[in-house]
Amino acid sequence: MDFFEALNARYSHKEEFLPDAVPLEVLEKICQAGINAPNGVNRQVVRFIILPNRASIDPLAAVSSTAGLATAPAAIAVLTDTTITPVQPGVFNFEKEDYSAAVTQMLLAATAQGYSSLWLDSPYFDAANRAKATQVLGAPDTMYLWAVLPVGKPKGEGSRRGRMAFEDRVSYGKFGHGK
Amino acid sequence: MDFFEALNARYSHKEEFLPDAVPLEVLEKICQAGINAPNGVNRQVVRFIILPNRASIDPLAAVSSTAGLATAPAAIAVLTDTTITPVQPGVFNFEKEDYSAAVTQMLLAATAQGYSSLWLDSPYFDAANRAKATQVLGAPDTMYLWAVLPVGKPKGEGSRRGRMAFEDRVSYGKFGHGK
Repeated sequence: MDFFEALNARYSHKEEFLPDAVPLEVLEKICQAGINAPNGVNRQVVRFIILPNRASIDPLAAVSSTAGLATAPAAIAVLTDTTITPVQPGVFNFEKEDYSAAVTQMLLAATAQGYSSLWLDSPYFDAANRAKATQVLGAPDTMYLWAVLPVGKPKGEGSRRGRMAFEDRVSYGKFGHGK
Repeated sequence: MDFFEALNARYSHKEEFLPDAVPLEVLEKICQAGINAPNGVNRQVVRFIILPNRASIDPLAAVSSTAGLATAPAAIAVLTDTTITPVQPGVFNFEKEDYSAAVTQMLLAATAQGYSSLWLDSPYFDAANRAKATQVLGAPDTMYLWAVLPVGKPKGEGSRRGRMAFEDRVSYGKFGHGK
């Protein structure tokens, strides 16, 4: 698929998915897109867990679910290894930027392969829920679970959110200046 | 350009650029990719300032420069409007995720149009430098300057950073499990 076609087709699918299985190669290509994302100081802190079927998703959905996670035939959990970035003055931590860049490329890679997905982070804002989900995923508590991306074919056409006008967000030369 | 071709071609160009001007349509298409990026609660907090020539970049490069910013024929500053997200308990702030997602799509959009770019954030980690740069850009101090993306044709082939092996970052079913 053309790059800009994929870019324009991507949307946040918050509704149900069809039950059709997602080929493992599709999921691996989505992870590879996450690996290829820009990352701070090339520390490569982001980790991925492919959940290729309901048997692997159900325990996670039991912790905290949404329409998407309850029905998705596959999903990918995105975590960062918090032990890699040195904790010392003057060393910046880029885990949030890095996971965000990875997820952004993953959502596009799902779209480019004809699948819908979602940046599902809200179930893991709550520290207790996040700890439970991390445990279900078999990850040590040094891994920070940021988001889970359900992947599948959408059951119906998902809703799209509108955007402000281009000229209200883009300036030329200086802030607030028009073309 | 094919989506995965653009994905694989993107890299962080930290070296010099050729002086050739970048058409405004190319820069606007990069901003549109930033606008189209996933964003938290659709608050649309990210703002873009197109710096289409050296006259608009030079004052910014004078604050804090790098090889890329010193030679780029064009650049785009990426800021967030910090007044949009309500500051109250239970309301999460997604400015870092949102700007990261926008920049990620912008870097791909530059690549897909045959240009090189860079997620240049380090000059603005320092609060004093960031304040100076924000002022030079004519933005109020309620705008947070996160990064500036130089855009142009590379002078030489830029260096690429290696990546860890796929199997060291991707698990199947549970953390640490192989295929």
